[in-house]
Amino acid sequence: MDSIIFLIQCPDQKGLVSNISNFFYERGFNVLDCQEHVDVLENQYFMRIQLDMSDLSSSRKQLEDEFADFGKRLNLQWSVYYSNRLTRIALMVTKAPHCLYDILVRHEQNELKCEIPMIISNHPTLEPIADKFRIPFYCLPIKDKNDRERQEKEIRNLLNKQHIDLIVLARYMQILSQSFTEDYFGRIINIHHAFLPAFKGANPYKNAYNRGVKMIGATAHYATAELDAGPIIEQDVQRVTHKNTPEMLAQIGADIERIVLARAVKAQLERRIIVHGNKTILFT
Amino acid sequence: MDSIIFLIQCPDQKGLVSNISNFFYERGFNVLDCQEHVDVLENQYFMRIQLDMSDLSSSRKQLEDEFADFGKRLNLQWSVYYSNRLTRIALMVTKAPHCLYDILVRHEQNELKCEIPMIISNHPTLEPIADKFRIPFYCLPIKDKNDRERQEKEIRNLLNKQHIDLIVLARYMQILSQSFTEDYFGRIINIHHAFLPAFKGANPYKNAYNRGVKMIGATAHYATAELDAGPIIEQDVQRVTHKNTPEMLAQIGADIERIVLARAVKAQLERRIIVHGNKTILFT
Amino acid sequence: MDSIIFLIQCPDQKGLVSNISNFFYERGFNVLDCQEHVDVLENQYFMRIQLDMSDLSSSRKQLEDEFADFGKRLNLQWSVYYSNRLTRIALMVTKAPHCLYDILVRHEQNELKCEIPMIISNHPTLEPIADKFRIPFYCLPIKDKNDRERQEKEIRNLLNKQHIDLIVLARYMQILSQSFTEDYFGRIINIHHAFLPAFKGANPYKNAYNRGVKMIGATAHYATAELDAGPIIEQDVQRVTHKNTPEMLAQIGADIERIVLARAVKAQLERRIIVHGNKTILFT
Amino acid sequence: MDSIIFLIQCPDQKGLVSNISNFFYERGFNVLDCQEHVDVLENQYFMRIQLDMSDLSSSRKQLEDEFADFGKRLNLQWSVYYSNRLTRIALMVTKAPHCLYDILVRHEQNELKCEIPMIISNHPTLEPIADKFRIPFYCLPIKDKNDRERQEKEIRNLLNKQHIDLIVLARYMQILSQSFTEDYFGRIINIHHAFLPAFKGANPYKNAYNRGVKMIGATAHYATAELDAGPIIEQDVQRVTHKNTPEMLAQIGADIERIVLARAVKAQLERRIIVHGNKTILFT
Repeated sequence: MDSIIFLIQCPDQKGLVSNISNFFYERGFNVLDCQEHVDVLENQYFMRIQLDMSDLSSSRKQLEDEFADFGKRLNLQWSVYYSNRLTRIALMVTKAPHCLYDILVRHEQNELKCEIPMIISNHPTLEPIADKFRIPFYCLPIKDKNDRERQEKEIRNLLNKQHIDLIVLARYMQILSQSFTEDYFGRIINIHHAFLPAFKGANPYKNAYNRGVKMIGATAHYATAELDAGPIIEQDVQRVTHKNTPEMLAQIGADIERIVLARAVKAQLERRIIVHGNKTILFT
Repeated sequence: MDSIIFLIQCPDQKGLVSNISNFFYERGFNVLDCQEHVDVLENQYFMRIQLDMSDLSSSRKQLEDEFADFGKRLNLQWSVYYSNRLTRIALMVTKAPHCLYDILVRHEQNELKCEIPMIISNHPTLEPIADKFRIPFYCLPIKDKNDRERQEKEIRNLLNKQHIDLIVLARYMQILSQSFTEDYFGRIINIHHAFLPAFKGANPYKNAYNRGVKMIGATAHYATAELDAGPIIEQDVQRVTHKNTPEMLAQIGADIERIVLARAVKAQLERRIIVHGNKTILFT
Repeated sequence: MDSIIFLIQCPDQKGLVSNISNFFYERGFNVLDCQEHVDVLENQYFMRIQLDMSDLSSSRKQLEDEFADFGKRLNLQWSVYYSNRLTRIALMVTKAPHCLYDILVRHEQNELKCEIPMIISNHPTLEPIADKFRIPFYCLPIKDKNDRERQEKEIRNLLNKQHIDLIVLARYMQILSQSFTEDYFGRIINIHHAFLPAFKGANPYKNAYNRGVKMIGATAHYATAELDAGPIIEQDVQRVTHKNTPEMLAQIGADIERIVLARAVKAQLERRIIVHGNKTILFT
Repeated sequence: MDSIIFLIQCPDQKGLVSNISNFFYERGFNVLDCQEHVDVLENQYFMRIQLDMSDLSSSRKQLEDEFADFGKRLNLQWSVYYSNRLTRIALMVTKAPHCLYDILVRHEQNELKCEIPMIISNHPTLEPIADKFRIPFYCLPIKDKNDRERQEKEIRNLLNKQHIDLIVLARYMQILSQSFTEDYFGRIINIHHAFLPAFKGANPYKNAYNRGVKMIGATAHYATAELDAGPIIEQDVQRVTHKNTPEMLAQIGADIERIVLARAVKAQLERRIIVHGNKTILFT
C-alpha cells in the first residue's frame, strides 16, 4: 500500500497532535501510523505521520501548499515523501566487498525498496560484484591529496546527472571534503567499523585489540565534516574474547557492519529518521 | 510530574488520533506522550495517551464521565490511571530469593514506584528477607492437593483487605487455580525461567541442558489458567555453552529472570501494556 | 599456517591431557591450540588438539596408525583432519535466497574455507544466483510423496560422484528420509528459522507472531530423522515488538538465520564440533 | 569439590601442555579443567589448570616448592590458589546502592564464594544497607584534595588489618592515588558506567546522551593510575533510544553495571583471569 509520510519538528506546544492530525482528518486521510517524540530537555516536538496515499483527493502540490500555510502558524519544520517515488542511491566503496554485497542482495530481494543506478569507487577491485548485479561501476581513483577536489567534482557530476537522493558509504575509505559533506548533509550515510565514539578514525579493530575490549561494534551515522562525529543512526555489538586476533575481529565485525548499515539505510528509505542537532530521532 | 494515562482500544477507523487528541485538547490538556498501534491483521486500534495532570480543571469523575460519553460513539474500550495513585503489589514467592530481593531493592531505590504491603509465600524460607525490608510476610503453606482451595481463599482475603492491584509471582512455585487466574486476569504477572514457549512447566533449566540449547531465557507473562501460556510481556536471553551444568544454567538464568520480571512490573506500573487476545501491546 | 586437528572423546580418567599431549610432544609437534571439556554428569572427556602440520615428520598414515594403537589403551574415539584438505560442501536450497547468497559470498571472500562444487534444489527459482557465482545448479523437483525416494537417490548419486563431505540445508524446505539422515548423520547442517525447541516444523514466524513472543531466533543443528530435533550447533535471537507482522518477522529473522548458519558451517569446517548424544561440544 | 588452581604464563615453546600436565600427573592429580591460550602476536603462552585438591598427597609448601623448581626450567610465571581459602573482599562505595546490594545479595546466596569483612565509603549514605547484611561499615570522608593521602592511609590500615585480598570499587566515586593503584595492581576491580574506551571519566550517561548513542554499556576493569584505562575484564551493553533521558540511561545502565561487575568479581574469585600488559586473558 502506498503512503505519504510527513516528518515534522517544532517547539513543543499544546495541541500539536490534535491540530496536525485534524489537518489530515479534514482532508479525508486515514492515518496508517503516527509516532511522536518530545525532547523535554530542549522542549522540541517531533512527529512522523504516515497516511494512506489512496485517500489523496487533491494534487500533491495542493496538499503541500495547504500544509505549508497550516505549518506557518505552528512554526513547523517539515518534509514530505511519497512511497511510490523510490529513493535513488549511489553506493560508494573501496575494496571491502561485504557491505556492498549485502546492500545489493537486499535490494535484489526487494528488502530495500530503492533504485541503485550507480556504484562509485576509488579502486577497481569490486567491479566484478557490480557486474554480477548489472549496476554501472565508476572507478574514480585519487592520485594524491591535491587530486581530491577534481575527483569530488566528478562524483558531484555523476550524482547530479542521475538525480541521486542518498549516498551510502559502504566502506568507502576516503575522507570527503568539508564542502561535500555540508552540501549533502543528511544525505550521506556512513558505516564506521567500531562502536563510536570509541575508536574513531583508521584501524579500529587493531585499536580495539590493543585495548583488550570484550565487545566490538559498528556505527551507522550521517557523514559530517568532522570525521566519525556525525549524528548516529544505528549501532550494534558482538561479544569477542582474548582469542580473537585483529583479523578475526575484522571478520566478526563485518557481520555487524553490514547489518547496522542495512538497518540505517532501511530507516532512511522508510523516512523514519529526523536529525536534530547532532542526534537522530529514530522512529520504529 | 504527575500524569493521567488513558489506555484505549477499538476497531480501526478514520480520525481516531484526531478525535481522541481533540477531546483532550479541548479540555486544555498538554499531551506528554501519545503512542498508537494498528493491528492491521485484525483491524484493531490501540492508543496510550499520557496527559499532564496539572492541566486537569474538572473532577476526575467528570473527566471520566465525559470520556465515557465520547467513547461510546467510537466504540472505545478504555481505562484510566492517575500516576499519583500508587499501584499496590502483593509479592508471592517460594524459596528462590533472587527475584524477591531484586524487586524489593528496586522498590526501595524508587525505581519501581508502587506500594508493597505484603509478601505471601507457601514456605517460611524467605521471611528474613522480608524482615530486612520491613514488609509483612504471610506464610501460607499447602498441605496437600485438596488444601489449595483453602489456601487460595486465605490469599484472596489478604488481597482484598489490603486493596491489592497487582500480584507478582516472583518465583512462586505453586499452580494457581483456574478461578483464581480468571478472577485476577491481567493482574498477575509471572516470571517463567525459560524462553517460552520452549520448556513450559517444571525444571526448564534441566530440560534446556538436556536439549543442548546455546541460549537460555526468561519470560514474564500474565498468568492464565493454562500453565505458562498467558500473554507474554517481556523476554530476554543469555548465551550459554556446553560447559554449563544445569546448576550453572540456573545461576546464569537468575540474572535474566530478575531483569525481565522487573521490566514487566515497571511496564505495568507505568501503564504501558494493553492485553489483546493472547498478546500484549507493549508501549515504550 | 596448515594444521592437523584431532577430535577425541573417551570416558574421563586420570592423565588424559598429559598422555595425549605427550604423544604429540614425543613426535615433535608444536600444539597450536588445545581445548578440553569434561561432562561431569556423564563422566565423559572431550578434547580438540590442533598441531602445526609443518612438524609432521612421518606419513599421515603412520601418524594415524600410531595414534590408533595409542588410543586403544585409553579407549579413545577419535577423528583427524588436515586443514589443507578442503571440505567439499553441497548446498541444498528451495526458494529463499538469503542463506544461499550469504554462504556463496563468504566462500568467495575466503571466510569459509571450503569447496562448493554443487547447489541442489527442488525448485528452479535460485538458479540465477548459482550462475552469478558459476556453481553447477541441479534442479531435482519432487512430484509427489512417492517421488521422494527417487529424488533422494539422485541426490545421493551427485553427492557420491563429487565426494561431498558436508551437506548444508540453506533453507531446503523438503523433509529428508530417515535413511538419508541416518546415512549422513553429523554431515547435514540445517538452519531452522526459530529458536528451537520452540516452533518446530512449518511456519515458525507465523506461530511466533500468534504467540506474541518478544524475541525471535534461529537454530543451526544437525539434521536427524526426527524433524528439528537434532543436536543444536548454534542459536541466536533478535528483539521484536508487537508492531512486527509475520512478514516483518520473516525479514528480521532472515538476518539471524544466515549468521547462525554461517557460524555453524564455519565451526564444522574448522572441526570445532564434537557430537555427543543429542548435544554438541562447540569449541571456540 | 575443593580444587587447586595454577595460573601460568611464559614464552611459547614446544611441549608446554605435555610438560606441565605431566608434572601434575606424576603427582597423582586428576585435572578437573585445563585451558590454554597462545598470544601468537606476542608469542606468549597462558594456562589455567584446575586440580582435584583431594589428590594432594604432600604439603602445599612441598607442591609449591617442587613446581617452582620445575617452572624455572621453562621460565614460568605462576601463581597458585586453593579454593577452600576464601578470598577476602573490601567493598568500596559512595552513594549509589545498586552494585553494593547486588554483591551483598549474591554473597548471601553463595553465588560469590568469598568473605566480605568490610565496606568502606566516603559517605554515610549506604550504611543502612551494610547494616541489613550485618557487615562493618567504615565511613572515611575526604575533606579536600589534600586530605586524600590521610584517608588512603586509613584505608590501607583497614585493608592490612583484615588481610584483604581484593578491593571492589562498587561505584566508589573518588580517584585513588597512583601509589595506591600501583601497590594493589591486579587487586582492585572497578566498574565504569560506560562502554570503555568511550566516555571515560565523569558523567558518562550525560555524555552518551549528548552524543546520541543507540547503546549504552558498562565496563569492569582493573584500576590503574590512569583513570578508566586499566585492563578490561568484562563489558556488556543495552539498547537505548532517543526517548531515554540521561536519568533513564542511568537507570537502564545500573542493570548492566551490576551484572558486569558481578561477572568480573566471580571471574576473579574463580581465578579465571590472567593480566598481560593492558589486556586480560579471561578463561571461561
